[in-house]
Amino acid sequence: MIIVLKKGATKKELNKVVEFIKNQGLKVHISKGAERTIIGAVGDVRRLDEDHLRSLHFVEKVMRVLKPFKLASREFHPDNTIIDINGIKIGGREIVVIAGPCAIESEEQLMKTAKAVKSAGAKVLRASAFKPRTSPYDFQGLGIEGLELLAKVKKKFNIAVETEVMDPRLVETVVDYVDIVRIGARNMQNFDLLKEVGKIRKPVILKNGIASTMQEFLMAAEYIMNEGNAKVILCNRGVRTFEPEMRFPLNIGLIALLKKESHLPVIIDPSHSMGRPDLIPPICKAAIAAGADGIIVEVHYNPEQALCDGPQALTPVVFKRMMAELKPIAGAVGRAF
Amino acid sequence: MIIVLKKGATKKELNKVVEFIKNQGLKVHISKGAERTIIGAVGDVRRLDEDHLRSLHFVEKVMRVLKPFKLASREFHPDNTIIDINGIKIGGREIVVIAGPCAIESEEQLMKTAKAVKSAGAKVLRASAFKPRTSPYDFQGLGIEGLELLAKVKKKFNIAVETEVMDPRLVETVVDYVDIVRIGARNMQNFDLLKEVGKIRKPVILKNGIASTMQEFLMAAEYIMNEGNAKVILCNRGVRTFEPEMRFPLNIGLIALLKKESHLPVIIDPSHSMGRPDLIPPICKAAIAAGADGIIVEVHYNPEQALCDGPQALTPVVFKRMMAELKPIAGAVGRAF
Amino acid sequence: MIIVLKKGATKKELNKVVEFIKNQGLKVHISKGAERTIIGAVGDVRRLDEDHLRSLHFVEKVMRVLKPFKLASREFHPDNTIIDINGIKIGGREIVVIAGPCAIESEEQLMKTAKAVKSAGAKVLRASAFKPRTSPYDFQGLGIEGLELLAKVKKKFNIAVETEVMDPRLVETVVDYVDIVRIGARNMQNFDLLKEVGKIRKPVILKNGIASTMQEFLMAAEYIMNEGNAKVILCNRGVRTFEPEMRFPLNIGLIALLKKESHLPVIIDPSHSMGRPDLIPPICKAAIAAGADGIIVEVHYNPEQALCDGPQALTPVVFKRMMAELKPIAGAVGRAF
Amino acid sequence: MIIVLKKGATKKELNKVVEFIKNQGLKVHISKGAERTIIGAVGDVRRLDEDHLRSLHFVEKVMRVLKPFKLASREFHPDNTIIDINGIKIGGREIVVIAGPCAIESEEQLMKTAKAVKSAGAKVLRASAFKPRTSPYDFQGLGIEGLELLAKVKKKFNIAVETEVMDPRLVETVVDYVDIVRIGARNMQNFDLLKEVGKIRKPVILKNGIASTMQEFLMAAEYIMNEGNAKVILCNRGVRTFEPEMRFPLNIGLIALLKKESHLPVIIDPSHSMGRPDLIPPICKAAIAAGADGIIVEVHYNPEQALCDGPQALTPVVFKRMMAELKPIAGAVGRAF
Repeated sequence: MIIVLKKGATKKELNKVVEFIKNQGLKVHISKGAERTIIGAVGDVRRLDEDHLRSLHFVEKVMRVLKPFKLASREFHPDNTIIDINGIKIGGREIVVIAGPCAIESEEQLMKTAKAVKSAGAKVLRASAFKPRTSPYDFQGLGIEGLELLAKVKKKFNIAVETEVMDPRLVETVVDYVDIVRIGARNMQNFDLLKEVGKIRKPVILKNGIASTMQEFLMAAEYIMNEGNAKVILCNRGVRTFEPEMRFPLNIGLIALLKKESHLPVIIDPSHSMGRPDLIPPICKAAIAAGADGIIVEVHYNPEQALCDGPQALTPVVFKRMMAELKPIAGAVGRAF
Repeated sequence: MIIVLKKGATKKELNKVVEFIKNQGLKVHISKGAERTIIGAVGDVRRLDEDHLRSLHFVEKVMRVLKPFKLASREFHPDNTIIDINGIKIGGREIVVIAGPCAIESEEQLMKTAKAVKSAGAKVLRASAFKPRTSPYDFQGLGIEGLELLAKVKKKFNIAVETEVMDPRLVETVVDYVDIVRIGARNMQNFDLLKEVGKIRKPVILKNGIASTMQEFLMAAEYIMNEGNAKVILCNRGVRTFEPEMRFPLNIGLIALLKKESHLPVIIDPSHSMGRPDLIPPICKAAIAAGADGIIVEVHYNPEQALCDGPQALTPVVFKRMMAELKPIAGAVGRAF
Repeated sequence: MIIVLKKGATKKELNKVVEFIKNQGLKVHISKGAERTIIGAVGDVRRLDEDHLRSLHFVEKVMRVLKPFKLASREFHPDNTIIDINGIKIGGREIVVIAGPCAIESEEQLMKTAKAVKSAGAKVLRASAFKPRTSPYDFQGLGIEGLELLAKVKKKFNIAVETEVMDPRLVETVVDYVDIVRIGARNMQNFDLLKEVGKIRKPVILKNGIASTMQEFLMAAEYIMNEGNAKVILCNRGVRTFEPEMRFPLNIGLIALLKKESHLPVIIDPSHSMGRPDLIPPICKAAIAAGADGIIVEVHYNPEQALCDGPQALTPVVFKRMMAELKPIAGAVGRAF
Repeated sequence: MIIVLKKGATKKELNKVVEFIKNQGLKVHISKGAERTIIGAVGDVRRLDEDHLRSLHFVEKVMRVLKPFKLASREFHPDNTIIDINGIKIGGREIVVIAGPCAIESEEQLMKTAKAVKSAGAKVLRASAFKPRTSPYDFQGLGIEGLELLAKVKKKFNIAVETEVMDPRLVETVVDYVDIVRIGARNMQNFDLLKEVGKIRKPVILKNGIASTMQEFLMAAEYIMNEGNAKVILCNRGVRTFEPEMRFPLNIGLIALLKKESHLPVIIDPSHSMGRPDLIPPICKAAIAAGADGIIVEVHYNPEQALCDGPQALTPVVFKRMMAELKPIAGAVGRAF
């Protein structure tokens, strides 16, 4: 960490900083310029309080050289993390597709969709029993009843299943029904929830917040990993911008950056980011070409009657066609599909 | 609600929409243009599923005319909501200042700060026992021990107190210790938490999310109010932008807009938005001039040693000076202070 | 266009709107609801003044159904525009790569780079003689001298060349030296410059502004086309967001959207968007997978000594490797390379 | 400037940097940590090429300590710049209001509005003869004819006048007709235009770009000042965000920050930022409370018939009322009005 003192800082003030750093067991390097003094703190500065130093009135700037995340960093864990779910490997050579309806609506809906997505090549069925909705007047999901339907479908079709969890009180319950739990964008910094899913031993899909930075995203993963659960799947679901034509434009460069900075698998959610089915196939192709490890996409056998997010779901027919189109892209970047 | 059909939509498709609307007990008005047909749905369309209509492949556009929030809207409740906390009235003629440290650190810290802010004119002491921190390695707050210190200070100085609640499991506990509970920006769409504070009967300060729209902000208030708690105080804490010089630039126009669209009191948080003490007094003056009902600001008797967010806290001396400067502004807009 | 009157608008006010629309030679459809009256204007509403209608105090909302751009729209021109530059076809089946240094620095630099990029498969050499720099103290380009070097290299290597034009007074001069002129992001809404390049008969690469919407982008193309120059190449160069790790995150979905809404060729600028070489190959792969027609990328044989934007340039070695990696992606989406 | 070398950088690489810095006549300070070496460049680093250093593959980070602007900085010019226009002083104790129609439409319009705004206390009449319009099909202004009307009104009412200039070829012409020229948001980085207005000797109102940072804004002012024109008035006109309810939310903190970092006068444009008249009075009050030196606001005697931006103009009646309301705010912050 580098601390730049303001012009005219006194020797006493310099010492105050030096002492503070040394008290944390770190070494100090001082560089005196004609106008400003620069102090370097050397050692494991991860726990050094940047904010405290910044608050000193004679400090001009404080700059971190090291990244604040550790468990999630590739520096700490050079090899790719490959998460194994009964033989489905996320983060390995194979691209994994997770597909299904936004919300669980009925047994018939779930059965039909599960059959369709499995036959088209999806390895995991997604479906929410608890729905975060902007309006309290909108459909909030079937709850536990939905989870039971999910378990039934899982058994019948022998397909892995995943669902969202929003409430820390329900983590223990939800985890029994599914193979993967999902944390949505609105809860990326719901730290009590992150800690709770950090205590389970099943994989967690973590979506980025709609205005989170890469660093905040990895720090949220760090919360989960710090509790002992290293099976985190990062999901790029786009961010809010000023563009009215798309819901949450997806920063494709972030896929490559996350793969570089972290060892965790990276997938994308084209449905919530684009918010319109016509842009889903091209964005999925782009993601795979850029190095994504998978996709979580909404498929509904009758989008026109979906109880939530209908307009952004693919029909099984379009999904199947897209799966066929993704295959050669995966091949072109040396991935299996 | 207005539904525009695509060029070439058939009569059968038109009827599909008409029926759907009528089935919800609404009236339909049809306007046929040379190229496109436009359908108006008339009546209480609040529960009409916009998403469903949008998902129909022959629908070009769906537009809401009415706002989706009701309980929080001024249309529904034309008079200002004035929240009374043992005689302190938020939302009335008087500007209310809430001040205190970011986090509760010790009894001494809390006592000193409470004394300082009260004597400078603050009506409520703010202090967090549970801290949402981006890093799991940062100080997370004193927890219940902190709440007990808060209760002690409340009694000793006869000052109202408020604190943040992050975990729905702790709402019941926290509410016993304080006069106001606070929902932070990260939890604006933590719907299970919103429902939980909707069940209590104490006022709730609701901060906007760092990338939330005005409408989403009022819909979050609607969640709380829909559970029966109408005592919501909206807190404008700024949004994330590309400007590196400030943490969360504050959209001052939003104060006036919220006061127009809603009857709820509106305050600002200058500390988390600006992130630097030098910009706090001017932004507070601006907020009061624009019609804000109050301010929640961080004051620490020793910002240099604060365990969190030190750099953005005012010292008691600066706070006192600011309070004196705010008085004439309040007078200039016909408010008491 | 749809005009919604406010609750309580009088018959006289309704007539005012009706007359205004009819005076523009358009038809009117009126739909009276229980609370609100909705007016539809039918015909060629492109020149109907939306702002005027919005300014009427008894009007609640004005909504356009048709897009405001015409010449640039696919509706108007269903087939892809293919721009032919001495046999190089942009917008056709082949992916076209434009490469070269940010700025023209010297004859040696230009010769070396031209040779390298041509041999790696680039079809056009890019290089700026006039540089838009944020600071007046930074290198501003070689000017006319640079253009002459460019012409020399063009002749020697028989390669098409392109350069940026910033000043409307220089358009006539610049156009003589190059095969394509480029309008940078800062000038996307420099309307006098757009009109000037609208008068030439050579292709124009138009970059989006750092905070422009898709519609504004296409309206800028419309300015050029409206003057008679239909050879516009849209260049997606990313937008400004809050993410500190990248300069201008690139919205890949915009490629697919532009291809859908417009018939113009779409390329990307990975160098200015990412601002770092490590993310350029993955973003280029993603762009081609998503349907881009080409790439304009910075290559410098010695990035460490580049006079501008050095850090974002590829070395010829990396460029060559990337070209090899892009080939299979192009094949996977049915494009030649 | 501080340069951090990557882990494992060699002594030879270190020397490369050291030499480069010394060659610019600067001093070097080296600080060797256990893992990384940090180099400080001391002296006038304003012209030191940050990009070059960043491009070295063994450099991890480059950080500027000093701001890149000089002429515009308060450090360089500690006292407020007060711009005198025939006795009207912008940047002094008095708040200056500039008002008038968006565009010049007719002599009658200009006369009526000039009379109204002058009698209400405006010191300068604003009106555009050249209009930057997003669509080529919209009204583009009266051009020279408009300037002549402006000159006529200036003489008749003895009021200072200002207008926008967009084309560098027209600066010389425009400057003869008006007391102040204005550079719009779209042209904040139209560097050829900036240089052109840097050569005149009349004041320039410079608006920020819709996505510019504070630093880029001051660098644009630096361009003008570097050509010899120190009479720059900074105009905060808001930035683009995701909020659909307002056109360009205005960051009020930026006013205070600009006043701190620069000696130039700061005004706001509430009309283009809010885009709706109801939010203009509160935002103007806020701006004055935060330290703004003036306001440039659109007033039209008949907004409903304005040829551009009608919806955002105040009527003379509302303008007069607002002027009365601003007076006590100015008094409350020690300013005259």
